[in-house]
Amino acid sequence: MMKLVEIIDGIKPVERQWIDKAQERTAQLVMPARALGRLHDISERFCGIQQTLEPKITKKAILVMAGDHGVVTEGVSAYPQEVTPAMVQTFLAGGAGINAICRQVGADVWVVDMGIVPRLDVSHLPRADRLMVEKIGNGTANFTRGPAMSPKNAEKAVLVGFEQATRLIEAGADLLGTGDMGIGNTTPSAAIGAVLTDTSLDEMVGRGTGVDDTVLELKRSIIENGIEINHPDPTDGLDVLTKVGGFEIGGIAGCILAGAHYKRPVVVDGFISTAGALIANVLSPLSVEYLFAGHCSEEPGHRRMLDYLKLNPILDLGMRLGEGTGSALAIGIIEAAIKIFRDMQTF
Amino acid sequence: MMKLVEIIDGIKPVERQWIDKAQERTAQLVMPARALGRLHDISERFCGIQQTLEPKITKKAILVMAGDHGVVTEGVSAYPQEVTPAMVQTFLAGGAGINAICRQVGADVWVVDMGIVPRLDVSHLPRADRLMVEKIGNGTANFTRGPAMSPKNAEKAVLVGFEQATRLIEAGADLLGTGDMGIGNTTPSAAIGAVLTDTSLDEMVGRGTGVDDTVLELKRSIIENGIEINHPDPTDGLDVLTKVGGFEIGGIAGCILAGAHYKRPVVVDGFISTAGALIANVLSPLSVEYLFAGHCSEEPGHRRMLDYLKLNPILDLGMRLGEGTGSALAIGIIEAAIKIFRDMQTF
Repeated sequence: MMKLVEIIDGIKPVERQWIDKAQERTAQLVMPARALGRLHDISERFCGIQQTLEPKITKKAILVMAGDHGVVTEGVSAYPQEVTPAMVQTFLAGGAGINAICRQVGADVWVVDMGIVPRLDVSHLPRADRLMVEKIGNGTANFTRGPAMSPKNAEKAVLVGFEQATRLIEAGADLLGTGDMGIGNTTPSAAIGAVLTDTSLDEMVGRGTGVDDTVLELKRSIIENGIEINHPDPTDGLDVLTKVGGFEIGGIAGCILAGAHYKRPVVVDGFISTAGALIANVLSPLSVEYLFAGHCSEEPGHRRMLDYLKLNPILDLGMRLGEGTGSALAIGIIEAAIKIFRDMQTF
Repeated sequence: MMKLVEIIDGIKPVERQWIDKAQERTAQLVMPARALGRLHDISERFCGIQQTLEPKITKKAILVMAGDHGVVTEGVSAYPQEVTPAMVQTFLAGGAGINAICRQVGADVWVVDMGIVPRLDVSHLPRADRLMVEKIGNGTANFTRGPAMSPKNAEKAVLVGFEQATRLIEAGADLLGTGDMGIGNTTPSAAIGAVLTDTSLDEMVGRGTGVDDTVLELKRSIIENGIEINHPDPTDGLDVLTKVGGFEIGGIAGCILAGAHYKRPVVVDGFISTAGALIANVLSPLSVEYLFAGHCSEEPGHRRMLDYLKLNPILDLGMRLGEGTGSALAIGIIEAAIKIFRDMQTF
């Protein structure tokens, strides 16, 4: 297993010279200068990441990281924890939102059990082979009483995410999308967002799957409490993950590091995935150069996170489901951008 | 040929009861209430238009209306008029932006010569059969000297657009996208937008394919002039088209009326297509119920037009190419919305 320091050392900036060359080609396409707006930015950054003027996407994979959260005992979610394994089973049955969108864009859905509470028997499900069981624990600890996990497990979560993404890259995936499943996970994500972007909890905490005003207030005070008790260090990504994180959030951070390490573009989904990106950004600021933001979530703090990372979301459709739905939906736009770059006639 | 009054009489409101039923189904999908935001609005309106709870898209067609504009002699465009036929040929060669995006989303590109200046020989081009020659004239007249076309030709342009869209619908197209090609056509579109949405020319006139500040000022005064000389009547869609319109803009209006008449959803593209939608809206306000706005253009007046029509654009990517690129790109999102509605498991 590669060490975290080796992973990070292997991440280099996206090469500016390929982006420059790509911009020269864009200028020759049969249209007014840069008339397809952000589609050009997307294809040119792709060229930079892939170090080519013939960018391509042959195999797309969405990696859905699943985990449970001890903090749900505080009553911060509109849904019971049993929904986490139920949705994991739905992913493997092909009946969730992420499955429908992935069929549309031609991407594979992979699920990693980073630490949901139950041990699932999924052998009867049609896509049982798409579940990787890599439990770091049976849910995190309640971070209002102490750290969500041990420092060792925080590092392990990142490394497992890295390994799982590496496996997909080795199997030919040249575009990865992040996804998440975990009842309660807007709570640790908001905590991470508040700590790492230095934003107030009023701005960062939202309704998640749909809590009412009373629970929203409770959620804010729970998070405030958790931050106060744990003192996460914003200059130390693993410490923030340890104190107020989630196993699946660590896995997402690892997936992002893998994309950057092996020069594969990664599309991040919404609020939870971007919390993972914030962790990755502390571990390796260069990793963000390999990211595309699939969409802007309805969860109010998401825009703040994206602005902090200087990521401009491709879509803004009022979505707030997670699962990777926003990253998968954006893949169609990214592919169109690549096709325009490659297929259009030049003057 | 159907008469315009018959076309308009045949346009009925989208049936609310199907939208209500569709919303009931959305509420049962395995996710928090309406967690995919605007994707639900899209699929439910599709159900309303198609009068079904099993909405489907089997055949998609982008109809690119091409025309030339007498007003270009005033120097309002960054490109010479010869670019219009050159781009029509590029569409038939498969090398334009619209071709690349349509390959991505699996849509056919059809081109109608509504009145470009030259008579083209396209027999050597691979997709010559995709060009319909329906010239209303060899470009419009310069609307700073009098009407752009005769009232008879304005009606003819709308009827030809209706017929061409009808032909595609009869051949099985169940989703139409509008597109345009015509050097100078942001000028008549801005004139139509200003007259029909009662917006100042400062807000409505933009740089089109990329004119500088001097030409932008000239363009504003040219349009002001054209409106003053012609007195277009904002309550009479054909009069506005006659006075300051374009053949392709009339064709787009006709295409939109066809979608509404035959209950087929139509995706409108950017500034020029939405000028066509404004004309259609005056002829038949109900026709707008069948429209989806593919994107918001970089052309500043477009947002104003969309707001006026109460259309919420699906994409906002700084595009300003026309050709139907914005409508085609949005098709992938619309198809994903339909797949989610149909394929997701229910609770």
